[in-house]
Amino acid sequence: MVALPDPEPLNELIESLTKLPGVGKRSARRMAYHLLQYDREGAKQIHDALDHALNDLVHCKMCNSFSQEEICAICQSPRRDHSLLCVVETPSDLNMIEASHGYHGLYYVLMGKLSPLDGVGAQTINFERLLKRVFEYPVKEVILATNFTAEGETTAHYLGTVLKEQNIKVSRIARGIPSGSELEYVDAGTIAWALNDRRSG
Amino acid sequence: MVALPDPEPLNELIESLTKLPGVGKRSARRMAYHLLQYDREGAKQIHDALDHALNDLVHCKMCNSFSQEEICAICQSPRRDHSLLCVVETPSDLNMIEASHGYHGLYYVLMGKLSPLDGVGAQTINFERLLKRVFEYPVKEVILATNFTAEGETTAHYLGTVLKEQNIKVSRIARGIPSGSELEYVDAGTIAWALNDRRSG
Repeated sequence: MVALPDPEPLNELIESLTKLPGVGKRSARRMAYHLLQYDREGAKQIHDALDHALNDLVHCKMCNSFSQEEICAICQSPRRDHSLLCVVETPSDLNMIEASHGYHGLYYVLMGKLSPLDGVGAQTINFERLLKRVFEYPVKEVILATNFTAEGETTAHYLGTVLKEQNIKVSRIARGIPSGSELEYVDAGTIAWALNDRRSG
Repeated sequence: MVALPDPEPLNELIESLTKLPGVGKRSARRMAYHLLQYDREGAKQIHDALDHALNDLVHCKMCNSFSQEEICAICQSPRRDHSLLCVVETPSDLNMIEASHGYHGLYYVLMGKLSPLDGVGAQTINFERLLKRVFEYPVKEVILATNFTAEGETTAHYLGTVLKEQNIKVSRIARGIPSGSELEYVDAGTIAWALNDRRSG
């Protein structure tokens, strides 16, 4: 499609931007032009932020989330319930649960999920680290809070099996009708689950 | 939505990635997680490419496109027709025209287009530079090859008016039925234009 090559540094920038998830060659080119033409300040910011993040962020030794310290603030906090461990897929999920103010235990962030169709297996996700975490700092209960997607469910099922084999108490967050929503607008699958998982009043 | 702040360098990275066109907070967060967790090599590449591009790329003094030299290869080439100047919106457009092998004149890249609704006026686009270019290195004809969108048409109309005032010959690339396509699948507006701009056989 393109005859004349762009100058080398431009090409290099376009190529590198395709490393961003969801960004193809065409978007990468648009991004590169935009940054170089209209937002060199922004380009500088991204440059410096990458530098900073690559050098200063580590994985918290206990929860595996991104942290500036070896052990993050949540895992260090004496005000959290250290007998509960909530397993989530990403740091965003952790943030969402924190925002709900309904949980005061600790977390473990998988930084991914099993996705056999994409070739992401137990090795890639490094579940061993979670097991090590649970043995090193024992907990009363592991709450599986992976998403209710095919991959999240597979992950929860796999983790549940492995943890139960080690005689660790495992639970799964409830699936049901979202609070504030009407049955009329909820999909049939969710309604079926909500009926099945009903609680005795 | 988020209670617990992400660690500072992560926040900074997420914030900086929203500078990319079309990237909101949510995508930026997904990109940051992905880079830090699964593609630190890619993050390093983006970092280095930004560095390289910000430092090594300049605007060609003649055509205004990105270049590593003061005057780019096309503008320097003695094999090009220096009496023709084709005005395009972006370096991508330049590449597309080069790929067509149908043009051997020089280019001028606007690096944008008039877009009054977005507050992009003649000052932002810096049309003065184009006028200066045309006076410094006179040409026989300026071909306006901006896109056939509302903004591209506005830009072409504005440039045409300004250039004609300076007694410079101006033309506009033809609008019509794309080669290889059937009338049945072409929109009515294009058919109307093609009829209007018909050439005597």
